[in-house]
Amino acid sequence: MFKKMKTIVIGKAIKSAESESEKFSVIWGLPVLSSDAISSVSYACEEILMVLVPVLGIASYKPLMGIAAAIVGLLLILVFSYRQTIECYPHGGGSYSVASDNLGKVPGLVAAASLSIDYVLTVAVSTCSGTAAITSAFPQTIPFRVEITLFLILLLTLGNLRGIRESSILFGIPTYLFIFSIIAMIATGLIKVFVFGQVPQPTTALPPQAQDVTILLLLKAFSSGCTALTGVEAVSNGIPNFKAPSQKNAKRVLALLALLVFVIFSGVCYLASMYKVAHAENVTVVSQIASRVFGSGTIMYFTVQATTAMILIMAANTAFADLPLLLSLLAKDGFVARSFGSRGARLSFSNGIMLLFLLSSVLVIVFKAETHLLIPLYAVGVFLSFTLSQTGMLKKWITHRQGNWRHKAVINGFGALMTAVTCVIIAVSKFASGAWIVLICIPSLVAFMLFIRKHYNKVRDNLSIEDSSSDLILENPTENYILLPVQSVNKSFVKALNYAMTLGKKIEVYHVSTNKAETERLKVKFGQLGLDFPLLIEEAPYRNINETLLAHVDKEQARLNKHEMLTVVLPQFVIPKRWHYMLHNQTSLRLKSALVRRRDVAVVTIPYIINE
Amino acid sequence: MFKKMKTIVIGKAIKSAESESEKFSVIWGLPVLSSDAISSVSYACEEILMVLVPVLGIASYKPLMGIAAAIVGLLLILVFSYRQTIECYPHGGGSYSVASDNLGKVPGLVAAASLSIDYVLTVAVSTCSGTAAITSAFPQTIPFRVEITLFLILLLTLGNLRGIRESSILFGIPTYLFIFSIIAMIATGLIKVFVFGQVPQPTTALPPQAQDVTILLLLKAFSSGCTALTGVEAVSNGIPNFKAPSQKNAKRVLALLALLVFVIFSGVCYLASMYKVAHAENVTVVSQIASRVFGSGTIMYFTVQATTAMILIMAANTAFADLPLLLSLLAKDGFVARSFGSRGARLSFSNGIMLLFLLSSVLVIVFKAETHLLIPLYAVGVFLSFTLSQTGMLKKWITHRQGNWRHKAVINGFGALMTAVTCVIIAVSKFASGAWIVLICIPSLVAFMLFIRKHYNKVRDNLSIEDSSSDLILENPTENYILLPVQSVNKSFVKALNYAMTLGKKIEVYHVSTNKAETERLKVKFGQLGLDFPLLIEEAPYRNINETLLAHVDKEQARLNKHEMLTVVLPQFVIPKRWHYMLHNQTSLRLKSALVRRRDVAVVTIPYIINE
Repeated sequence: MFKKMKTIVIGKAIKSAESESEKFSVIWGLPVLSSDAISSVSYACEEILMVLVPVLGIASYKPLMGIAAAIVGLLLILVFSYRQTIECYPHGGGSYSVASDNLGKVPGLVAAASLSIDYVLTVAVSTCSGTAAITSAFPQTIPFRVEITLFLILLLTLGNLRGIRESSILFGIPTYLFIFSIIAMIATGLIKVFVFGQVPQPTTALPPQAQDVTILLLLKAFSSGCTALTGVEAVSNGIPNFKAPSQKNAKRVLALLALLVFVIFSGVCYLASMYKVAHAENVTVVSQIASRVFGSGTIMYFTVQATTAMILIMAANTAFADLPLLLSLLAKDGFVARSFGSRGARLSFSNGIMLLFLLSSVLVIVFKAETHLLIPLYAVGVFLSFTLSQTGMLKKWITHRQGNWRHKAVINGFGALMTAVTCVIIAVSKFASGAWIVLICIPSLVAFMLFIRKHYNKVRDNLSIEDSSSDLILENPTENYILLPVQSVNKSFVKALNYAMTLGKKIEVYHVSTNKAETERLKVKFGQLGLDFPLLIEEAPYRNINETLLAHVDKEQARLNKHEMLTVVLPQFVIPKRWHYMLHNQTSLRLKSALVRRRDVAVVTIPYIINE
Repeated sequence: MFKKMKTIVIGKAIKSAESESEKFSVIWGLPVLSSDAISSVSYACEEILMVLVPVLGIASYKPLMGIAAAIVGLLLILVFSYRQTIECYPHGGGSYSVASDNLGKVPGLVAAASLSIDYVLTVAVSTCSGTAAITSAFPQTIPFRVEITLFLILLLTLGNLRGIRESSILFGIPTYLFIFSIIAMIATGLIKVFVFGQVPQPTTALPPQAQDVTILLLLKAFSSGCTALTGVEAVSNGIPNFKAPSQKNAKRVLALLALLVFVIFSGVCYLASMYKVAHAENVTVVSQIASRVFGSGTIMYFTVQATTAMILIMAANTAFADLPLLLSLLAKDGFVARSFGSRGARLSFSNGIMLLFLLSSVLVIVFKAETHLLIPLYAVGVFLSFTLSQTGMLKKWITHRQGNWRHKAVINGFGALMTAVTCVIIAVSKFASGAWIVLICIPSLVAFMLFIRKHYNKVRDNLSIEDSSSDLILENPTENYILLPVQSVNKSFVKALNYAMTLGKKIEVYHVSTNKAETERLKVKFGQLGLDFPLLIEEAPYRNINETLLAHVDKEQARLNKHEMLTVVLPQFVIPKRWHYMLHNQTSLRLKSALVRRRDVAVVTIPYIINE
C-alpha cells in the first residue's frame, strides 16, 4: 500500500547507473543557476524602502538610488572574485570546499553552517515572497498566505523527491518570461515618462520627512538591500554541469547573471523612485509599479505577477537542489548523519530534501509567511560564506604564489574585505531584528557537526580491523548456552524449543512466575512435553517479568568464559495486520532491546505466524 | 534516570501479595462511594435553570421545583431497585456484570461501553465543575480555566498511579465538610427567611417570560437535571469493600446517600428559587446562593466554594478507581487489550488510569472546560446502563422465580421502565446538543470490543496445544542453514561470524553490492580472514539493500525441507547513548522486522558494544 502510494507520488525507482545528469549550455544554464539571484531583486528594493520611508518619507528616493549603486558596486566585486574561483575549481567551488581546502576544517564548517541556514532561508523567503506576488494580484487570497506558502513548499518537495533537476527547459521558460516581462515593464515605464512625457503620479500620499538621514539608517537600508546579491555564488557551484568548455561557459553565465541583476535591480529601484512607490500592506512594490506602468487588471500586469511568483519558486527550488548536495558532501566527510549521503529511489538525496521541507515549513509557520520578518535573518549567512570563500581564495594565492598571483590576490582580497565589511554591517544593523538567531545557530551547528564527526570516528575506531585479521577467527567453536524464557506452553514456544534443540544441548527453560495458579498449570503442561532438561522457575513479587529475566541473564552472563556467548531464544508470534499489535503487550520488544545491549548475549527470534 | 523519576513520582513498587485492601464501615464508606452522586447536585440545579431561564425568565422557578420533585422521585425508584441488586450480587453488581449475566454478551457490552463513556465524562464534568467553583471564588483565575482543570486531572492521575484508594479518611473529611457546609448553607438560608423574616433579593434582574411552558422545554430541563442521579450505582459496585455484614452496610450507605442527595438537591433548588438565582457567566449557582446567604467574601462562603471544588475532585477520583477496574474485568474477558488487566508497580491498573487521563484531558481541551457543553453527553450513558442493569435484574427474577420474586420483579421492572423512559427523553431532547456523539460512540465501542475478543480467540486457537503435546517435539534436530549478511568487514561482523560458526557448518556470507569499489575492498578484506565458505555477492542497481536481501532470504527459505529453518545472523553495534542512534541508518531495524514476518527464518542478533 505505502509502496504503491510512494511510486505514484515520487515515481519509479531509478538505477544508480543512470545517474549521469544533463549538461547545460549558456542559454539554458543561465536560468537554472540564476533564478535565486535574479528573483531576490523582486523583494530587495521593497526591503530598502521599508527601512527608509517610515523615517524619510517623501525624501527616501535619493538615498534609495545611492544604496542601489552601492549594492551594484558590491555585485561587480563579487563577479570578479567568483570568476577566479571558477578558474581554480573546475569541479565546483562551493564555499564549503574552498574554505575547508584553504582555511581548514573549522572555517569550512562555518561556511557550511552559514550556507545551510541560508538555503533554508532561501526556501522560506522565496516562497513567502512568491505568495506575496500571488496575494498582491488576488487580494481575496490574503487570509490563506501561510497555507499557500506551505503548499508551494510541499510541491517543491515532491518535485525534488521525484528529481526535477533533469529538465532545464522547465526552469528556462519561466525565468526568461520573468526577465522579459520585468524588462518590458522597466522599458515601458521609462518610455512613457521620457518619450511620451507622462507625469508619474505617486501611488500613495507619502508622509513628510520625519527625521534626518543618519549613517545607521543608510547602513540598515543597505543591509536590507544586500539580499539582492544572494544566489550569485550558485554559478561557481555548478561548473561541472556545464557543456565543455565548462569553465568558460560558467564565466559567461556569471557575467550575464550580473548584467541581469544590474539591469533589473537598478531599473526597479529607478521606477520605484519615479512613481514614489512605498511599501504597502499586502501589495508588493513590483506589483504597484506594474499596475502603474501597465494599468492594474491588464494582461501585462498579471504576467509580471505570475512570472515573479514563478521565478521565486524556482529560486526556492535552487535551495532544494543545493542543500541536499551540500549535506551529502558533509555526510561523506562525517560531519552530518550518514543518511544524508544516500540517494533515494529516484537518485535524489531524499533525507536532505525532507529536512529542508521540515525546517522551511517551520520557519514559514513561525514567521507567519511574512517576508520582511525573515529578511533580517537572511543575508548574514550569505555574506559570511562569501567572506570565507574569498578569504580562502586569497590564502590560496598567497600560499601557492603561481603566475599572476599578486593581481588575483588583490581582487579576492578586496572581495573578502568588502564582503566582510558588509557582513559586519548586516550583523550589527539587523542584530536585534533577527540576525542574532543566525549568530547563535552558526556556532551551534559547527559544534554539533564536530561532535558528529567525533562520534563517527569513535565508532570507526571501535569497529576497524588491523591487518592481522585472520587471528580474529576463533579456532575451536565453543558450545552454546541456551536460555529459553517461557510464559505459556503453546505452539509458538514449542517451535522455539525445537529450534533451540538444534543449537546445542545446554538448554535451560526459564519461567518468571507472577501468579501461582498459572505457574502450576505451566509446570503440568511442560511436564507433558517429556523433555530432559530443567524448567527453572523464579518468582517476581513485583510483577516485573522483564527485569527479573534480565537479572537472571546477567547472572548467567557473568559465568561465561571468554568468547563464550549466551543465546537467548525468544518465541514471537507474528500477526498479519500490524495494527493488531496494539492489542498485545509489547514487552517482548522492550526485552529484546534491553537484551541486545548486553555484550555476550545473542538474541534469537523465532517467529510464529498467526493465521487470519 | 527515568526509573528514578518514576519512583519519586509514583512511589516504590508494591508486592502482589500486599493487594488486600481496606474495608469500609458505614461512616467511611459513605464518603468514598457517594462523592460522585452528591457532587453532581452542585451543577444539576444550574443545568435546569440554564434551560428554563432563557425561555421562561422570572417564571422559571415553579417548573424548577416540579422538575426537582420528579428527579427525587426517580431517585427513590433507583434506591429501591439497587437495594435488590445489592442483595443478589454480594461480590459487586456493576451494570456490566448484571447485564452480561442475565441478558447476554452484547447487552453486557452495551452497559460496559456506556459506563466507560460515563466514567470519562465524570472526570471531565467534575473537574470542569470543580474549576468553576474555584473561578467563581477567584475571578482572576478565569482565563486559566482549561489549565487549572488539566492540572487537577494530572494530580488525580498521579495520585491514582500511586494508589490513593487506601485512605478513606482522605476522602471522608472533604466529603463530610461539603455535606455540612452545604447543609449549613441551606439551613441558614431557610432560617434567615422564615425565622428572621428577611425578604430575599433576586441576584440579577431576570427577563420577563418570553414564551409559554412547553412539554419539550420541561423534558429538556428534566434531562439536564438528571445528572444529579449519576453515581448512585457506585454503592452496588463496591459491596465487597464493606465490613461484614457487607450487604447490610451497603444498603445503609445507599439509603444515606439517597437521603443526602434528596436534602441537598431539593435544598439547593429551593434556595435558588427563593433568591431567584439564574445562571450567570463565570459564577456558579451555588456560589451565588452562598454569597446571598453568607455574604460574599465571608469565611463560610469560601468554605462552601472550597468544599464544592474538593468534592467534585473526589467525584472525578471515583471514576479513576472505577474505569480501570471495569477495563480490567473487560480485559479478563478479552474484550479490551490485555494490558488493561495488568497491575502496575503500585498495584493500580496503570494503563486504564493513563487512558482515562488522556481521554478526559482531550474532552476538557475540546470543550474548553465548559461544564454545560459536556452535560448533554453525560446522562445518556448513565441511564442506559441503569436501564440495562434493571432489565437484567427483572430477567433474573422472571427466570429463577424464587421466593418473593413477583414483588421484586415489579420493583426492578418499574425501575427499568422509568430509567428507560428517562434515557429516551435525554437522548431525544439532548440529541442535537451532543447526545448524538454518545449514541455513535456506544455501538462503535461495542463493535470494537467484539472485534478484539474475536482477535484474541483467533490468536489463542492458533497457539493452543492439544493433549498429544509430546508429539510436537521433533526427534532428530536438523542441521542449521546460516545466512550472514555483510556490508563491511569489521569487528562487529567478525564477532557475528565467530558466533555463526558455533551454530553449524552450512554458512553463507552474503553481500549486497551498491558500489563496485566498495565491493572490491570487501572481497579483499574477506579473503584475508582465510575462511572456507563462500562470499555470495548480489548487485542492487536500485540501491535497495534490504529488499535485495529479503528476496534472497525468500529464495533460500523456499528450498528448505519441512521443519528446517534458515538462521539469519545479524551483527548489530550498540551505542551506549541511545540518541546517538539517530546518526546511524536504522535500516537493520526495518530489516529485522521484515525478516521476523517470515515463517521459517530465525533471526539472531549479535551485539557489538561501542566503547565511549
